[in-house]
Amino acid sequence: MTPEVTDVDLRGSELFSFLGSPQADAMNFLNEIALRFPEAVSFAAGRPHEGFFSVDLIRRYLDTYTEHLLREYNQDESLVCQDLLQYGRTKGIIHGLIAKCLSVDEGIEVDPESIVVTVGAQEGLYLVLRALRATADDVVLAVQPGYVGFTGAAELCDLPVLPVRGGPAGVDLTDLADTLRRARAAGQRPRALYLNTDFANPTGHSLSRATRDLLLRTAEDEDILLIEDNPYGIFGPDRESPPTLKALDRSRRVVYVGSFAKSGFPGARVGYVVADQRVELAGRRESLADQLARLKSMLTVNTSPIGQAVIGGKLLENGFSMRAANKREIDVYQRNLRQLLEGLAAHFPAGSQPEVTWNTPDGGFFLLLNVPFEAGDDALERSAREHGVLWTPIHHFHGDGRPRRQIRLSFSHLSPAEIEEGLRRLAGFVRS
Amino acid sequence: MTPEVTDVDLRGSELFSFLGSPQADAMNFLNEIALRFPEAVSFAAGRPHEGFFSVDLIRRYLDTYTEHLLREYNQDESLVCQDLLQYGRTKGIIHGLIAKCLSVDEGIEVDPESIVVTVGAQEGLYLVLRALRATADDVVLAVQPGYVGFTGAAELCDLPVLPVRGGPAGVDLTDLADTLRRARAAGQRPRALYLNTDFANPTGHSLSRATRDLLLRTAEDEDILLIEDNPYGIFGPDRESPPTLKALDRSRRVVYVGSFAKSGFPGARVGYVVADQRVELAGRRESLADQLARLKSMLTVNTSPIGQAVIGGKLLENGFSMRAANKREIDVYQRNLRQLLEGLAAHFPAGSQPEVTWNTPDGGFFLLLNVPFEAGDDALERSAREHGVLWTPIHHFHGDGRPRRQIRLSFSHLSPAEIEEGLRRLAGFVRS
Repeated sequence: MTPEVTDVDLRGSELFSFLGSPQADAMNFLNEIALRFPEAVSFAAGRPHEGFFSVDLIRRYLDTYTEHLLREYNQDESLVCQDLLQYGRTKGIIHGLIAKCLSVDEGIEVDPESIVVTVGAQEGLYLVLRALRATADDVVLAVQPGYVGFTGAAELCDLPVLPVRGGPAGVDLTDLADTLRRARAAGQRPRALYLNTDFANPTGHSLSRATRDLLLRTAEDEDILLIEDNPYGIFGPDRESPPTLKALDRSRRVVYVGSFAKSGFPGARVGYVVADQRVELAGRRESLADQLARLKSMLTVNTSPIGQAVIGGKLLENGFSMRAANKREIDVYQRNLRQLLEGLAAHFPAGSQPEVTWNTPDGGFFLLLNVPFEAGDDALERSAREHGVLWTPIHHFHGDGRPRRQIRLSFSHLSPAEIEEGLRRLAGFVRS
Repeated sequence: MTPEVTDVDLRGSELFSFLGSPQADAMNFLNEIALRFPEAVSFAAGRPHEGFFSVDLIRRYLDTYTEHLLREYNQDESLVCQDLLQYGRTKGIIHGLIAKCLSVDEGIEVDPESIVVTVGAQEGLYLVLRALRATADDVVLAVQPGYVGFTGAAELCDLPVLPVRGGPAGVDLTDLADTLRRARAAGQRPRALYLNTDFANPTGHSLSRATRDLLLRTAEDEDILLIEDNPYGIFGPDRESPPTLKALDRSRRVVYVGSFAKSGFPGARVGYVVADQRVELAGRRESLADQLARLKSMLTVNTSPIGQAVIGGKLLENGFSMRAANKREIDVYQRNLRQLLEGLAAHFPAGSQPEVTWNTPDGGFFLLLNVPFEAGDDALERSAREHGVLWTPIHHFHGDGRPRRQIRLSFSHLSPAEIEEGLRRLAGFVRS
């Protein structure tokens, strides 16, 4: 009776295999290194700027939404209480406000009934993938490097993810076609391609209008859906950017996943899916949104109406525009981006040794830095310990665990002083 | 080019097969019939009494929790803002308060680190099942009739559910042993048994102390976990009831799933899992709670801290006791239960024709009514249309779709006048 045997209740072979994988531990590793080096400047955290947060805002937005409901219900407070505190509509209660927001901010016109309000965009991704996973042959594609939460949600659904090169265009259409062909030749059924269209995580890349049009055409020709996840689209300069895929979608090829974690508050845990695809199932005609709601009722029942009310109040106070609501934050992100680009140019002048390059997104939270060495978890550990600066190794966004000569720099959450000091430390580390 | 072809984007064969099943549609059917017959008295809805709800309560509990955080953080409001509005701890922020509540209300002593705060108990069930589903041989057992959300969560994980008879004891231990033996003989690996220990949904049954002890012994002998889901335990009379399985658990056999939907507010969407099982995985020693957190980070990221704050405030104002916080509600439920039992006795005296019988739980939200005909969805439809009374056909809690001569009556949400009128209508229907 050795302790090794008696004090363990469950072993790896008795648990979902994903739990033992490096991917499942990546988030832990990145959180834990931040906790171990609290004095480090962090270019790692992709959190929104919190300088304008206040507890009073929660109260105010709740009040604004409550007054809106009272007007809707002719001042009957018991109906307002039911909406906010009882079990509620599986697809959510602020779908009408979200539809207006999509129209104002993105030029997307959708029936509010095709919207499912979710516990963050993350639950939305899970629901879409779980609905699409019909057989063991089904696979999805994802632009990589890309958001790790998509791969994670696919793991929960036992759905393989085939990587598609992103490149400076945001998506490499040749590689997309090749990947689809290879998958089909191997007997797989590709269902959808996942991507961020604007200021992508982790690359900062955006798709041109021409790429968007070609991608929509490809999706139609290849009979796949596009899962467009667009949490950073509004965080760009004021001038016109190309319409979202969903705004250009004329044949319901695009499932649009939205987040209020960056534009509202992460703590509200409110996102949504627009799924207007027409479904024929068991003799019924419904929308894909209705199918997602069926799954959601078995997963989280509904999204907290209290969280929805906070986001609803913010939308009501800002003419349904999160772009308007985030005017001050957008200025911060744009200022930080300029400072970071100028600082990189000063610390790593062209032709300097070692050669260091980066891309120049004009919005969002992130950019890519190319370094002359393999920037894996060991390098991050050394950077934190010896130079007091954190960043994210790009391999975490590839999912194959192979270190690359590239890192993600996040600038959304830092002050000018932190960016200045962080760049000094980062330059010291890169040169060391 | 017929419209049947061109206006459908996705077909059943392209979607998760569960979506086409009668179970996936059951919730819709039950909701929809309530909407079609708004004048009907409903013994169907299992919602908590909302007579004491108010919007001011949300504000008050938020304030109480905020003041608690301000004290914890030496009045640093920026740290309070981070907790409530930023991305936060995957396992939640009110785990310490929940541990105190478990100690006060249930005599359960657990390390707060073994608690994962979830988006309702429903997400908790999903996370436990997804973690336990390692191979296609894994199966779980559930006392049936039982909560449909458990079967639904298992469906999402492709995990078969083997029914175990409940019976008046709450769980039929002989049938449990038989089911385990048959499953193993068929090459399956049984992982856990799911049940409500007190005032179960839909039966109202509770386990005796002796049954609890035997069940724990059986779990150990058979090497399975017990998933104890206990949303109704506090809604009983004041006198002592037997301890929960988790309070009796000396060998970490019990995963305890808790809900604040009935004791707090459904709209907060806050539940939790106690998972103190020790796990050895990829060379690490952790708890099952840590594994659930890994999965949660890919599913909902974290539970809304705003919802958590509302529940936290309620716990803080009531000495961490939801039993104390619900004193008035418990009186309502107990009064409704007495009225329902007395009304049934008056409408269906012993020996009356047709023979109608029922059980007599002493707490909770539900009881079982045996009727002399098959009470399926058709009968419910007729009851609603011709007699203006709704109830829940028991087959929805079996999952095999076969109508039975039994219905669930819920009494949590009705006024005395509604119970009186509802019973009159129900008697008319049963006699018709």
